[in-house]
Amino acid sequence: MMLKMSLAELRAFLVCEFPQVSDEFEIVDVAPMELILCLRTGDRHLRPGGTVSGPAMFSLADVAMYLAILAMIGPQALAVTTNCSIDFMRKPVAGQDVIARARLHKLGRVLAVGDVMLYSEGQVAPVARASLTYSIPPSRG
Amino acid sequence: MMLKMSLAELRAFLVCEFPQVSDEFEIVDVAPMELILCLRTGDRHLRPGGTVSGPAMFSLADVAMYLAILAMIGPQALAVTTNCSIDFMRKPVAGQDVIARARLHKLGRVLAVGDVMLYSEGQVAPVARASLTYSIPPSRG
Amino acid sequence: MMLKMSLAELRAFLVCEFPQVSDEFEIVDVAPMELILCLRTGDRHLRPGGTVSGPAMFSLADVAMYLAILAMIGPQALAVTTNCSIDFMRKPVAGQDVIARARLHKLGRVLAVGDVMLYSEGQVAPVARASLTYSIPPSRG
Amino acid sequence: MMLKMSLAELRAFLVCEFPQVSDEFEIVDVAPMELILCLRTGDRHLRPGGTVSGPAMFSLADVAMYLAILAMIGPQALAVTTNCSIDFMRKPVAGQDVIARARLHKLGRVLAVGDVMLYSEGQVAPVARASLTYSIPPSRG
Repeated sequence: MMLKMSLAELRAFLVCEFPQVSDEFEIVDVAPMELILCLRTGDRHLRPGGTVSGPAMFSLADVAMYLAILAMIGPQALAVTTNCSIDFMRKPVAGQDVIARARLHKLGRVLAVGDVMLYSEGQVAPVARASLTYSIPPSRG
Repeated sequence: MMLKMSLAELRAFLVCEFPQVSDEFEIVDVAPMELILCLRTGDRHLRPGGTVSGPAMFSLADVAMYLAILAMIGPQALAVTTNCSIDFMRKPVAGQDVIARARLHKLGRVLAVGDVMLYSEGQVAPVARASLTYSIPPSRG
Repeated sequence: MMLKMSLAELRAFLVCEFPQVSDEFEIVDVAPMELILCLRTGDRHLRPGGTVSGPAMFSLADVAMYLAILAMIGPQALAVTTNCSIDFMRKPVAGQDVIARARLHKLGRVLAVGDVMLYSEGQVAPVARASLTYSIPPSRG
Repeated sequence: MMLKMSLAELRAFLVCEFPQVSDEFEIVDVAPMELILCLRTGDRHLRPGGTVSGPAMFSLADVAMYLAILAMIGPQALAVTTNCSIDFMRKPVAGQDVIARARLHKLGRVLAVGDVMLYSEGQVAPVARASLTYSIPPSRG
């Protein structure tokens, strides 16, 4: 399977379609069935104490998987999250960006399934892992 | 099992400890092992199209379960989310508040487990359901 | 929404289609979007110590949700489990049957979503809870 | 982190403690925080049509994670599954064994978290993936 959108196309798509968050997220790299996304953490992502909040990590995992799917099926599609199961394993390092590594395990006709590992920048041990399922509408193509 | 915090005490706790979000969330009611929380939806919770975003629903479910646990064990505790599995089932009604009904199924020494049903205000069919596990630190009591 | 299969029809279906397990499972009751299923626990469901095993509880939840869906869409369909998230909360009571209470929250064109509470017979506190998603093939009807 | 049990010790443990299933499961390899387990599929694991059943895959993932944890903390521990979220992605190849690749992401004082990829032997695309949380009792050591 090959990419339908390049790194540059994905970045342009993010700016166009999600201008309100495009400064928070940086698409670091993309490959077939894989994508790396960085959350530039700011005050709005932090809990008291300075660590990244659960909803901010959920959002990062969700956007990473969404972009990994679009990279494979193209920008016309309107994929929708149907399930996310997320394990919070360690407190993120205060003040650090968070890196998401998304892998697609299945890209079917109606469902896409993958998982995402989340890391505080510069750390080996993950702060969270998530598995996500997306529903892909029939009208694509 | 009895409540350790009344509705008024929970509301005061939310204002004191989470001033940045206390105007978004309204604690509607509390009972042993149950709590109802309302998200007063505003622009920051919405996706293009006017429906409430996935991260906003995740956040609502997470806060509802957190408050349901605190109501039972008291405000000194620092419970931490370890897992959330959320199913997004229907598009929320644009412009409507979202109601979360949280039920605790287990309140153990180290783990609390429960689920949350989410509804657009005035609708019978749920927009999402979530199950959550919290880790309760040993230092309580 | 109305039932497409009665309690008697569901019981006959179970005997016909799953003869190898039809003596383990008893369909106790069915209503629109709801079904109660009992696992008649035997040696093959038990762990050392006499409690029902995790795979046996998973299987009970899975069959309960499958039958709840068939009751609504009829026996011709070939629904397939795509996700199950299960929380094991308490040790089942040794030697007791396990009761599953399944509720469907969504019965869509391609996906059905519901949850199941599991109880040792005669107990109030649940031993486990599961949420399940089924994919419904397009060929039905 | 180092292994507390070698491959030979894990195999002996499986035969001793779980004689009723030790002929179904073969521990293929073990490394720190990783373990590979094979299900020797037999009639009792199969659905009509000859593919491995959901409960058999759940059981394989559960045992793989359990053994990966024991390899790190030693055989005295009584770890208990508290959550499993499993995605069924493809129909297993009929008549083939199923290989589970378990990775531990966190081995904490009270919780262990990891995931497992399941493959029909000889296939590249996974048939299922699972994430599991185990509770580790305080009495170890």
